[in-house]
Amino acid sequence: MHSFLELSKIFEQKFNQRHFPTHTETLYEPAQYILQLGGKRVRPVCVLMGNELFDEINPDSYEVATAIELFHNFSLIHDDIMDKAPLRRGMETVHTKYGESTALLAGDVMLVQAYEYLNKIKRDYSQKIFEVFNNTAKAVCEGQQLDMDFEKRTVVSLEEYVNMITLKTSVLLAASLQLGAILGGAGQGNQQHLYEFGKNLGIAFQVQDDFLDAFGDPDKFGKQVGGDILANKKTFLMIHAMEVASASQKEDLANLMEIATINPTEKINKVLSIFRDCKVDEWAVELKEKYVQIALQHLDETAVLLARKKPLMELTEYLIQRES
Amino acid sequence: MHSFLELSKIFEQKFNQRHFPTHTETLYEPAQYILQLGGKRVRPVCVLMGNELFDEINPDSYEVATAIELFHNFSLIHDDIMDKAPLRRGMETVHTKYGESTALLAGDVMLVQAYEYLNKIKRDYSQKIFEVFNNTAKAVCEGQQLDMDFEKRTVVSLEEYVNMITLKTSVLLAASLQLGAILGGAGQGNQQHLYEFGKNLGIAFQVQDDFLDAFGDPDKFGKQVGGDILANKKTFLMIHAMEVASASQKEDLANLMEIATINPTEKINKVLSIFRDCKVDEWAVELKEKYVQIALQHLDETAVLLARKKPLMELTEYLIQRES
Repeated sequence: MHSFLELSKIFEQKFNQRHFPTHTETLYEPAQYILQLGGKRVRPVCVLMGNELFDEINPDSYEVATAIELFHNFSLIHDDIMDKAPLRRGMETVHTKYGESTALLAGDVMLVQAYEYLNKIKRDYSQKIFEVFNNTAKAVCEGQQLDMDFEKRTVVSLEEYVNMITLKTSVLLAASLQLGAILGGAGQGNQQHLYEFGKNLGIAFQVQDDFLDAFGDPDKFGKQVGGDILANKKTFLMIHAMEVASASQKEDLANLMEIATINPTEKINKVLSIFRDCKVDEWAVELKEKYVQIALQHLDETAVLLARKKPLMELTEYLIQRES
Repeated sequence: MHSFLELSKIFEQKFNQRHFPTHTETLYEPAQYILQLGGKRVRPVCVLMGNELFDEINPDSYEVATAIELFHNFSLIHDDIMDKAPLRRGMETVHTKYGESTALLAGDVMLVQAYEYLNKIKRDYSQKIFEVFNNTAKAVCEGQQLDMDFEKRTVVSLEEYVNMITLKTSVLLAASLQLGAILGGAGQGNQQHLYEFGKNLGIAFQVQDDFLDAFGDPDKFGKQVGGDILANKKTFLMIHAMEVASASQKEDLANLMEIATINPTEKINKVLSIFRDCKVDEWAVELKEKYVQIALQHLDETAVLLARKKPLMELTEYLIQRES
């Protein structure tokens, strides 16, 4: 058994190699570039943890973990194009550095390379692994499409937003754990519990991310506080505020989002003030805790010795800051 | 045994269904849209022909053929974004109709769906099928990248151009035949001959396409003659002309490509006149014939009864117009 941090180190070492041929360099160098920007590698480590929850690490888990990390980076490259994002992890995004067309192709070839790694695993379980991987890949694309659809809408319900976030981000965490469980020989029931653990943990993480963007300590958070507010982003907080605010507060929020000339700090402060009046901050903390509890309930119901669950508890602590 | 046209009809009937879930419609409707624009379906039919050359059709061939056609459409959607093409088969391209971001995602999900079809086949040969498919997919991406790289260069050698065209277009035809051969139980040698047949046929087709764009009968060709010349495209003809032209002819060609204000018909006629002076037309006909001969040589060397090769001879006639 390895701790979460041990597995992170083991994976990072294995992953830290060139994943593409040198030839055609104009295509493969941009693909390799994003992999070198680092990242927490949480998803591939989830594959390893999902495996080790049930059995010693199956060598095929490294192939699947690598495929998951490549898939994740494929989606980052393409999302950054769609979002016109200039930076990723403090560095230029692939399309900023190499142009949109090359970034598009580099993403495509990254996805193919993910399937190449999947194709290395044993035939015994490969069909099931591909099935979970494909369903997840489609869900992630659906989530990104819904996110873009919601940007054009004025009203999005909390239920719709949770569904979108689940598809766009949580399902990949959930599937990573399930894939590991399959490779560890887990039965259907345990696979499902682990999937639900990952899915709910992912949603809790997203609630926290939205919360910290508005109410976080700028020094700890590492990003500019209020970025989502300035970008008029639909977040857990904004969606809930629009649901519970009074008619005049709703009007104020709508106006604040529309005025292009407002001073940024003033805009952030005014929106935060409405959020506080609507107790959106307390609500978000409770919502996060609700999803963490559902996640832990599923981990609890996973039928393996408690001691084996320690790395997944560490993951929960690593991802989620909790009061108690 | 079925003729090329019979197999085309059989495939079209099987393929003519919805390949995506209805939910999330804003993503899957654009993906389904391009499939309904039609097309010759030459590549998937090549899978069926490659199979039937060796044995009765293996039901898995329909899954692989479908995967190939979905892959082809994935690459069309993404290429059209990169080329900023407004029309495809006389209809709006996916990004023109639904926006670039949705087109990007619809392409992504189309590629995933291709892998979904591949995942339905028997485990006996699935690893080899995935391997050929993945290598081909990477080659196609490399070809598209090289095509874009070449646009920025003033000099591209014939060898480089043949390599780019092979990767971008011929390899998919070649792989389709090989995949069919694998499913038909062909040995390594026969697979390779069929691959080379498809590859060289694909190159010959591309030479013909470039030739017809310059020297074709507008009524038969179905496109505006001289389109490549007006777009300053590097084609087999232009690359050869730049290799064999005299210093003054080269200067004339370079000037004709640079002048933005020239009358289109005048530009086409002047370039064609240099092409004729350099005997580029005769050269292209010979080059096409050279590749057709290499292709037929490989078909000849494929170790099956001559009678079984008839559909592939029909394919050659269907794709290539020949004098004799």
